[in-house]
Amino acid sequence: MSTPVDVPVDVPVDVPEQAVPRTSRSRSLGRLAMNQATVPRWSTAEAIEGCTRAGYAAIGLWRDRLEPGGAKRAGELARAAGLAVSSLCRGGWFCAPDAAGRRERAADNRRAVDEAAELDAAMLVLVCGPATTRDLEAGRREVSDAVAELAEYARPAGVPLAVEPMHPMYCGDRSVVVTLPQALRIARSVVEGGVGVVLDSYHLWWDPDLTASMAGAASSVLGVQLADWLAPPPHPLEGRGMLGDGTIELRRFVELADATGYAGPLEVEIFNREVWRADPTETLAVVARRYAEHVA
Amino acid sequence: MSTPVDVPVDVPVDVPEQAVPRTSRSRSLGRLAMNQATVPRWSTAEAIEGCTRAGYAAIGLWRDRLEPGGAKRAGELARAAGLAVSSLCRGGWFCAPDAAGRRERAADNRRAVDEAAELDAAMLVLVCGPATTRDLEAGRREVSDAVAELAEYARPAGVPLAVEPMHPMYCGDRSVVVTLPQALRIARSVVEGGVGVVLDSYHLWWDPDLTASMAGAASSVLGVQLADWLAPPPHPLEGRGMLGDGTIELRRFVELADATGYAGPLEVEIFNREVWRADPTETLAVVARRYAEHVA
Repeated sequence: MSTPVDVPVDVPVDVPEQAVPRTSRSRSLGRLAMNQATVPRWSTAEAIEGCTRAGYAAIGLWRDRLEPGGAKRAGELARAAGLAVSSLCRGGWFCAPDAAGRRERAADNRRAVDEAAELDAAMLVLVCGPATTRDLEAGRREVSDAVAELAEYARPAGVPLAVEPMHPMYCGDRSVVVTLPQALRIARSVVEGGVGVVLDSYHLWWDPDLTASMAGAASSVLGVQLADWLAPPPHPLEGRGMLGDGTIELRRFVELADATGYAGPLEVEIFNREVWRADPTETLAVVARRYAEHVA
Repeated sequence: MSTPVDVPVDVPVDVPEQAVPRTSRSRSLGRLAMNQATVPRWSTAEAIEGCTRAGYAAIGLWRDRLEPGGAKRAGELARAAGLAVSSLCRGGWFCAPDAAGRRERAADNRRAVDEAAELDAAMLVLVCGPATTRDLEAGRREVSDAVAELAEYARPAGVPLAVEPMHPMYCGDRSVVVTLPQALRIARSVVEGGVGVVLDSYHLWWDPDLTASMAGAASSVLGVQLADWLAPPPHPLEGRGMLGDGTIELRRFVELADATGYAGPLEVEIFNREVWRADPTETLAVVARRYAEHVA
C-alpha cells in the first residue's frame, strides 16, 4: 500500500543517541503521536519523516511494515529525526491448537521483542487471542501463561509488554482479553514486572465502569491510543472514526488515563478505508486540528 | 418481507384461555422458542402457525410485524394455537434531545406495554438507548429514570419489563446498557419490582466475568435468547450465527442462566441475511436440530 512520494531517504543517522530528545518539540503538538496504521500509504521511512516534519511527538510502528534493514534501520531513522517510537504493533496471537504451534508463536514473539528493543519502542503491543476452541476460559489461561513466559524474555531486553484489552466485538477472532480489569489481572499476575496495559479509546469507551476501571489501572499504563467510535460502525474492522467524528468523550478518556499517572504520548490509530485513501500529510494535519479541538 | 404461504388464517380463537396450556408440548422440543425476527418471511399469523406445527414451546413477537387487529388478534391466535408468547420486542429507545421527545417515547412505550398485555407476553424487551449526546453517563441516567417511570405503568398491567444488556458494539447507536451487572443495577433500582433482565448469548458471551455476572442475576431473569457469534462477524447488525456455527459455548450459557433459577423458554433470535432468505419451515427444522446438538 506504500505510495512513492518525494521524501528524503538519506536522513542522517549518525546523531549520537544520547543527544536525541525523547520527543520532538520543535513544532510541538504536545503529546500527539501517530500510529503508522493511520497512514498506510507511507512507507516506514516516509512516515517517520512525515510525522517529524508535522511536529508529532512520537510514532507507533508496525512489524509488517518494516522495510529492508528492518527494526534496526527504522530505529536509526527515528532517533536521527528525534522522533520517539511510542509502540511496536504487534506481538501476541499466542494461542495455537498444539504445542508446536505455541512454540512457533513464542519464537515469533521473541523476535518482536528484539525488534522493539532495536526501535527503543516504549512498548510492544500484544493482541491476546483468539482462542482456538469455544472454551474461552482455556484460551484466557493460555494467553496469561504465554504473556508471563514472554515477559521473562522481554524484561532483560528492556521492552515493556502491553496487554491490550480489545473491544468485545473482537473476542471471537482477535482477543480474548476484552476489558481493562481483565487486562490488568493478566499484567499484574506477572509479579516480576515488565507487563502493563495500553488503553485505546475505541476498545474501552463503552465500559459502564470506565471511571473505576481506569482508576484501577494506576501505574500500569504503558500507552494510550485514540480513535473515535462511529455510530453505527460502518465496518467491524475498518470502521474507526477520525477524532471528533464519533461518540467518544475523548478528552474525558485522556483525563482518566492521565489520572493513572500516565503522561506519555497519545497515539492516534484509525483503521478506516476513507482515512487510508487520504493524502497522509493532510491526514496528519486533520488529526492535529481534531486533537486540538477534542483532546488537548 | 412477508411471503404468502398456504396457512389457515381462520384459526379458531374461541378456546377459553384457561384451557390453553402455557406451552405446546404435543410435538415438544422442550423449551425451544422462536423469535419472529429469525423468520421474517412469515407474517405473524404464519409464524404462530408454523412454530406451533413444528412443536416449538413459544414465540417471541415484534411490534412492527403485528398485523391488522394488532396485538389483540395475535394474542388470540397464539392462545388458540396453545403457543406461549415468550417476549414482545421491543420497547425502549427512551432517550430524546428534549422533554417533548421523551414524552413521545414514553407514550409509545406505554402502548408497547398495552400490546404485551394483550399478547400475554412473558416480557417486554427494552432497548436501552442510545444516548443523544456523547455524555454516556447522562444517557444512562436518562434510561434508568425512564425504565422506573415505565414500570409504574407496566406493573398494574402485569407486564414484566426486561432490560436487555446489548453487545458493547451497539453502545453508540442502540443501547447504553452493555453489561449484565449494569442491567441488573437498573432493574433492581426499581424497588417496587416488575423489572428484570433478558440474557442473550450473542450480547453477553464475551464477558470475562460471565460466571459471576450470571450468578448475580438470580431471580431477575425474565427470558433467555440464543444466537451464535460468527468470527469474524460478517456484519455489525445482521451477522448473528445459527446455533453451532460460531464461537459460543451455548450449552454452558444456558446452564448458567438456569442456575439463576430460570426455567422458561429459550428463544432463538438470529439476525442474519442468509437465514432470512431461507424457507422459514426449513429454518425451524435446522434450529431444532442445532438446539438438540448444542443446547438441550
